[in-house]
Amino acid sequence: MKYKGIITPMLTPFTKAGSIDYAATETLLDFLRSIKVHGVFPLGSTGVFNWLETEERKKFLEFVIEHSKGMKVFAGVGASGSYESVKLARHARDAGADVLVLMPTYYIKPDQNYILNHMNLVFGKIDADFFIYNIPQFVGEFISVQTIESLIKANPNVVGIKESSGDMRYFSRLIRFSGKEFSVIQGQDDLLLPSLSIGADGGVCGTTNFSDAVVDLYGSFMDGNYVKSREIQVSRIDPMMEALALSPFPEAYYAAFYTKNKLSGGYREPMGTPSDKVIREVGKYLSDQ
Amino acid sequence: MKYKGIITPMLTPFTKAGSIDYAATETLLDFLRSIKVHGVFPLGSTGVFNWLETEERKKFLEFVIEHSKGMKVFAGVGASGSYESVKLARHARDAGADVLVLMPTYYIKPDQNYILNHMNLVFGKIDADFFIYNIPQFVGEFISVQTIESLIKANPNVVGIKESSGDMRYFSRLIRFSGKEFSVIQGQDDLLLPSLSIGADGGVCGTTNFSDAVVDLYGSFMDGNYVKSREIQVSRIDPMMEALALSPFPEAYYAAFYTKNKLSGGYREPMGTPSDKVIREVGKYLSDQ
Amino acid sequence: MKYKGIITPMLTPFTKAGSIDYAATETLLDFLRSIKVHGVFPLGSTGVFNWLETEERKKFLEFVIEHSKGMKVFAGVGASGSYESVKLARHARDAGADVLVLMPTYYIKPDQNYILNHMNLVFGKIDADFFIYNIPQFVGEFISVQTIESLIKANPNVVGIKESSGDMRYFSRLIRFSGKEFSVIQGQDDLLLPSLSIGADGGVCGTTNFSDAVVDLYGSFMDGNYVKSREIQVSRIDPMMEALALSPFPEAYYAAFYTKNKLSGGYREPMGTPSDKVIREVGKYLSDQ
Amino acid sequence: MKYKGIITPMLTPFTKAGSIDYAATETLLDFLRSIKVHGVFPLGSTGVFNWLETEERKKFLEFVIEHSKGMKVFAGVGASGSYESVKLARHARDAGADVLVLMPTYYIKPDQNYILNHMNLVFGKIDADFFIYNIPQFVGEFISVQTIESLIKANPNVVGIKESSGDMRYFSRLIRFSGKEFSVIQGQDDLLLPSLSIGADGGVCGTTNFSDAVVDLYGSFMDGNYVKSREIQVSRIDPMMEALALSPFPEAYYAAFYTKNKLSGGYREPMGTPSDKVIREVGKYLSDQ
Repeated sequence: MKYKGIITPMLTPFTKAGSIDYAATETLLDFLRSIKVHGVFPLGSTGVFNWLETEERKKFLEFVIEHSKGMKVFAGVGASGSYESVKLARHARDAGADVLVLMPTYYIKPDQNYILNHMNLVFGKIDADFFIYNIPQFVGEFISVQTIESLIKANPNVVGIKESSGDMRYFSRLIRFSGKEFSVIQGQDDLLLPSLSIGADGGVCGTTNFSDAVVDLYGSFMDGNYVKSREIQVSRIDPMMEALALSPFPEAYYAAFYTKNKLSGGYREPMGTPSDKVIREVGKYLSDQ
Repeated sequence: MKYKGIITPMLTPFTKAGSIDYAATETLLDFLRSIKVHGVFPLGSTGVFNWLETEERKKFLEFVIEHSKGMKVFAGVGASGSYESVKLARHARDAGADVLVLMPTYYIKPDQNYILNHMNLVFGKIDADFFIYNIPQFVGEFISVQTIESLIKANPNVVGIKESSGDMRYFSRLIRFSGKEFSVIQGQDDLLLPSLSIGADGGVCGTTNFSDAVVDLYGSFMDGNYVKSREIQVSRIDPMMEALALSPFPEAYYAAFYTKNKLSGGYREPMGTPSDKVIREVGKYLSDQ
Repeated sequence: MKYKGIITPMLTPFTKAGSIDYAATETLLDFLRSIKVHGVFPLGSTGVFNWLETEERKKFLEFVIEHSKGMKVFAGVGASGSYESVKLARHARDAGADVLVLMPTYYIKPDQNYILNHMNLVFGKIDADFFIYNIPQFVGEFISVQTIESLIKANPNVVGIKESSGDMRYFSRLIRFSGKEFSVIQGQDDLLLPSLSIGADGGVCGTTNFSDAVVDLYGSFMDGNYVKSREIQVSRIDPMMEALALSPFPEAYYAAFYTKNKLSGGYREPMGTPSDKVIREVGKYLSDQ
Repeated sequence: MKYKGIITPMLTPFTKAGSIDYAATETLLDFLRSIKVHGVFPLGSTGVFNWLETEERKKFLEFVIEHSKGMKVFAGVGASGSYESVKLARHARDAGADVLVLMPTYYIKPDQNYILNHMNLVFGKIDADFFIYNIPQFVGEFISVQTIESLIKANPNVVGIKESSGDMRYFSRLIRFSGKEFSVIQGQDDLLLPSLSIGADGGVCGTTNFSDAVVDLYGSFMDGNYVKSREIQVSRIDPMMEALALSPFPEAYYAAFYTKNKLSGGYREPMGTPSDKVIREVGKYLSDQ
């Protein structure tokens, strides 16, 4: 079976007081179901997994799985430590996640051997479907095409790649891996149509936390309506992405979600509340639902 | 009038002894006409303009214009010095080039003010159609979207952009400038289809010096045959681009052209002859004509 | 009181089986006392704090403090999460560390506001002496000079900076902060003498885990013996640093320590055992003691 | 014979109208003689060689040699084209320059082979003393230590290196080449004392165009007065360098020179006149002479 379509890298809603807001999480999951995303990806970078405590991560994931009603759950199991990722992966599998998403070790800028050791260790120890997560702007290094080839060959449970580098040339070199049983997914909303045009299997798109534009684009593209796809990419998604870039990632995603749902909402430190200008700008792109 | 389609950033053929080979230049122009590129761009980076003497540049351009028979000529007028670019631009216009292609000053890493001063000076002094040429990997700096906006506003003779950064996100922010009288052109062959998918007006594609794949892709795309476009991009062009990257730019382009045309050929220093392996690899992608 | 001199960013010795080796840790502390370093810094990058579990970190720190016999203890309290750093800082202070060393949040590339929020939160909540730790190659961003100024002004308990960027120009701009009550310390062994020459207060130098060269250099410099300082920097330390760079950081530091002490030793994954060549190269620089 | 001491990378004075100002050039040479720099380096980056026409370059160099009265002349012969550098080198030698200073080819980001081909060609064809000029921020690539080793071995007429990368670690790896007949020179004023501390033979320092601080530092250092050297580096030179960085290089150097000498002065395009604030800031650091 192959994973396709639009997946939401879920933000982690917070209360004004700073703890995880589970009511708001339900609101988010209801919205995602209503706009028909194909899967949800809690505990990725948009979800600021790295600023959550381990117990928060586990509880949040369990809650999302319990309330996912039909949406596939891609669970982020990233950590700097290989053994920490093993533990998180074991928990996520036991909790019922469909796919586990693993990034390279980070902080100490890894070379390709560190990446191989880290990922082979986790893939080898946990019997579950995995996505490779490439995000060099945070990890400090690209996973080389050769490393990906080697990881896929050694680990039959690796079933896809989420590629978020923003480097379209690199992404195009991964398209070769897309096949009947393997998915290549674009992680940047503003590169979605270019990626679909060369054969990407879908997108992990942060704007779906508050907008249905990406889902519309994907639907139009699958219907063969290329003119409409282009219109959505250029006129709805790209300006939205420029507005979101006005605050350091991912503050403005949180502001957009809180504004859309009339929540006071909180920002886990070291995030802070974006300026009124940013809130106004991203406010232009919220879906009505 | 608007410039569209596929343009060849012509290499400058050399003899074994190291001077410009005009017979080989005719061979190249004949091939380009036969595969129906829409324009030729002599004296760009592929043409190693920066390793030619001023007199060589002028004579080569005059020869290309004279033998262009129906193909539009986009003449590179790049130089580090603003006044040198003015002189080259004046010559190119007088020689009959259709469009002049101007890059920022280079060597001293320019800030946006240096870019504005340099380009406004040349655009203002020479009454001709101009393309802006963005190539930050050699210039040391991107032309910011705001700078482009300002250049277009101040100079009605700026009619397009050749964007060769390889940064698809940046490229997508330029698409807004594409209009009835303004062209946005992709300068990287392996980003051609992604760029067309969001509305690019064409490509300046180096592989056309020895292959018709890019022209086929563009034709298929204009006919609405997206499946074929994708097939050409992924299976013909992308592997060719990987092979070309085996030698430092642009040696392998020269090797491919010489091999295709059974020329002994020369490499203007500091270029050298690529290894046999590189010549073999790029040899797989040559058109029959 | 002001902190000065040579501090060892302690590696965390592991057993072949992979757990922390406390006997080897005593061996290391004995060596450091014998060569007369002025302080020890457990749980920094050389100590791969990011690959240890929280309980391991706490226990290791307590052990080091207990066995430090007269050496000042600078305890790394770095984490991606601000609240995690608060907890680690509270523990380290209560355990009796002399100074706490705090880096910016990492993984999500922080802007200066994220850095300010993160550090102000920790400095404000824990009443202890702190060093700022600048290490942009792992964090993804420099702490700007202006941010440092602001942090010092707002937090009287900030008493120094460990600057490990390797950018000597940036380092020289920090020298202004060195004063009667504030220390500016170089974190790269191969920049030690250049840094002392402009007024640095000391060095946090990884090679002290197995070599006394840096301590010799510092002693010679303080004695006014500049010729000998230079000789040690150029002929003993710099070649050692080149050898250590043959493996991805910090594998070769571990190999050197294990070789020096005839320990079989382990490498916490994703580290691996360096090649025989690397072990041979770094083996040339071990102190006899 | 070995070249040592402080060398001035001369700016090229312009008249308000934009041509080279030879009267101001004499003023500059008189100042340099008065502060006792050991050599002058016309036609480097500070001299904006890349924005001069070939005839201007030649005439300016001849003028400087003619008026150098005892100061060694290091002539910049940099160009993107290898053959252009050969021609410039031949002219400079014939005009009587003491040393020719050659950088790698630029614009097309060179790999080490391009660098080797370019430099070996020029060194081999012109029988004169040469300095290698490393300036990766403009060239696009470092000259690797291995390449430098190879160039020195193959060309006995290479007698020194001007290293302007600003990377102190790289610089420290070059110190090994300093010997009885070979000079290693620092090209950044704010790294002068750190470089001297590890054995550099001198500095090519831009602030000498209007300030004697660097000459004072060098003299103090040679006299063994390390405290005074440090004081000059930290309190006079470093703040001056920060002020000069307020405008894009090298505008503020020109502003400082014109202000010091009460010249209206011009800025060869694409340079522009710095803001009043910049002129005020750099005005604080001018020598009285």
